[in-house]
Amino acid sequence: MNELTLKDIQQAAERIRTHAHYTPVLRCESINQLAGNDLFCKGEHLQKVGAFKFRGAFNAVSQLSREQLDQGLITVSSGNHAQALALAGQLFRSKVYIIMPETASHIKKEAVKSYGATIYSCGNVQHQREKALIDFQIKTGAYYIHSFDHPHIIEGQGTVALELLNQVADLDVLVAPVGGGGLLAGIALCAKSMSPGIQVYGAEPLGADDAARSLASGERQPQLDPQTIADGLQTGLGELNWSIIKQSVDRIVTVREDEILHATRFVWERMKQLVEPSGAVALAAVFSDEFRALHQGQRVGLVFSGGNVNSDFFQNQNQS
Amino acid sequence: MNELTLKDIQQAAERIRTHAHYTPVLRCESINQLAGNDLFCKGEHLQKVGAFKFRGAFNAVSQLSREQLDQGLITVSSGNHAQALALAGQLFRSKVYIIMPETASHIKKEAVKSYGATIYSCGNVQHQREKALIDFQIKTGAYYIHSFDHPHIIEGQGTVALELLNQVADLDVLVAPVGGGGLLAGIALCAKSMSPGIQVYGAEPLGADDAARSLASGERQPQLDPQTIADGLQTGLGELNWSIIKQSVDRIVTVREDEILHATRFVWERMKQLVEPSGAVALAAVFSDEFRALHQGQRVGLVFSGGNVNSDFFQNQNQS
Repeated sequence: MNELTLKDIQQAAERIRTHAHYTPVLRCESINQLAGNDLFCKGEHLQKVGAFKFRGAFNAVSQLSREQLDQGLITVSSGNHAQALALAGQLFRSKVYIIMPETASHIKKEAVKSYGATIYSCGNVQHQREKALIDFQIKTGAYYIHSFDHPHIIEGQGTVALELLNQVADLDVLVAPVGGGGLLAGIALCAKSMSPGIQVYGAEPLGADDAARSLASGERQPQLDPQTIADGLQTGLGELNWSIIKQSVDRIVTVREDEILHATRFVWERMKQLVEPSGAVALAAVFSDEFRALHQGQRVGLVFSGGNVNSDFFQNQNQS
Repeated sequence: MNELTLKDIQQAAERIRTHAHYTPVLRCESINQLAGNDLFCKGEHLQKVGAFKFRGAFNAVSQLSREQLDQGLITVSSGNHAQALALAGQLFRSKVYIIMPETASHIKKEAVKSYGATIYSCGNVQHQREKALIDFQIKTGAYYIHSFDHPHIIEGQGTVALELLNQVADLDVLVAPVGGGGLLAGIALCAKSMSPGIQVYGAEPLGADDAARSLASGERQPQLDPQTIADGLQTGLGELNWSIIKQSVDRIVTVREDEILHATRFVWERMKQLVEPSGAVALAAVFSDEFRALHQGQRVGLVFSGGNVNSDFFQNQNQS
């Protein structure tokens, strides 16, 4: 019933066209040399709110009726989806409630508030978040927008590939980070429809490798105790996302923490682009031995998925 | 005798064309809102070696004879000119010697070495640097390339404005940071020739304000004990640079350290561009009360001059 197609993604692109940025493709000689491939980096850290998440959130909110919008919107997120929904809600004059763990950083809370959203605090554990969601949804009557496990979110994130494949011809491989799987599912669906010969890979931290284990076993595996600096990729795969990923994704490349940090720093130092560690995981995968053994001298597309670096980063800098 | 003209800058642009990046103009809605003007930011942090300095260094080196190149090249710099000359020398197969204070950061030394240059250490004080230069120049016989006080350097840096004025029509004001004055002199010369009605401003840290004092008094003033996080702007004005600046620059806007930090962080957080504090001083000036009292709703060009952030930045991040 949820048979998403390229046409859905093209319609999403039409919906978001006047509000989302058509982000640039970034190139860098020294990164190409190190990678041994020709890289085309889709700069989603330059998207509105600093991450691709705005595409899916806007696409989802734009399809609600005025009645639904007037009920308000609610989600659970300590990350980029929170900001994305807050901005999308503001644009449609809908009240937005964000449930965030108490431990979420001050800077992220401030960003969400700057878009006029209301924050509710919850505990850090999964069941506490779920309980808070139910409680506040009953209290507010707001419409729940899941951060990744929804067709409208997947369609919206898929527009990243729609743009990239229009910007760059003849890509051999396309690599995107995978957490909940909205971006990877949307991209795989789009790329395999537009360019059947293309390989689509997910890039995942070894410390949060449920997608790799799922693809290896053929069954969706739980994300147990994720441990990674790539905080945007700690989520487990969504059900709908997994149903698309298992059909359309060719491989998941896992990367160690030191590989993630190295790739992040490389982008900062050489490309002067402030990507967050989660946003550099696809590059870390492209730098990996596993990837380089499979591809040499090829045209590789990858997604810099976000640029919202932790506040510590700025605090440290301020003290120096 | 050193009567530089627009034609010299155009010829420099032709020389550097195949080696320097034609850098993009960056735009950002939230920065425009805060500034109350329409800003066009020339992204020289995306230039080769991460700073505009490559333009001048390449332009100077490309005009040397094979005999001069074979003698080698020498300069004194702990900053971006060191990397720029090292790369320019490498491209022309000339041995490069860089005299650097012992206290220069490890990351900057490594960057210079990565282009094949040889580093000589010297003390931190002006007369120690000058003595080291004379000693090593005698020892090596290398040709001295000053980091700012030379017509070929000024011509090269002026190409920043040549590009920007071709990329953006009808600028009302153009703002560039000023340290030794190579960039500001080149830009002022170029902009006033191409667009006589344009205003050209220098942006300078209050803690290193020799240019502001010079323009106020009509005489070149010394830079005494500079104190600023904008380490690229601690140098005093060069003689040739001053002779151009006093004729062509309309105003020097000075900014406090907190204003420099605020502008730097703003570029990181909102534009996701890794500019160094020196590179954000022009934006700090545009954000200042002094500037906003003069200009509202106008088209303002400014230069993000460099992106080589101190190594502490990366070390802090690595520990988190």
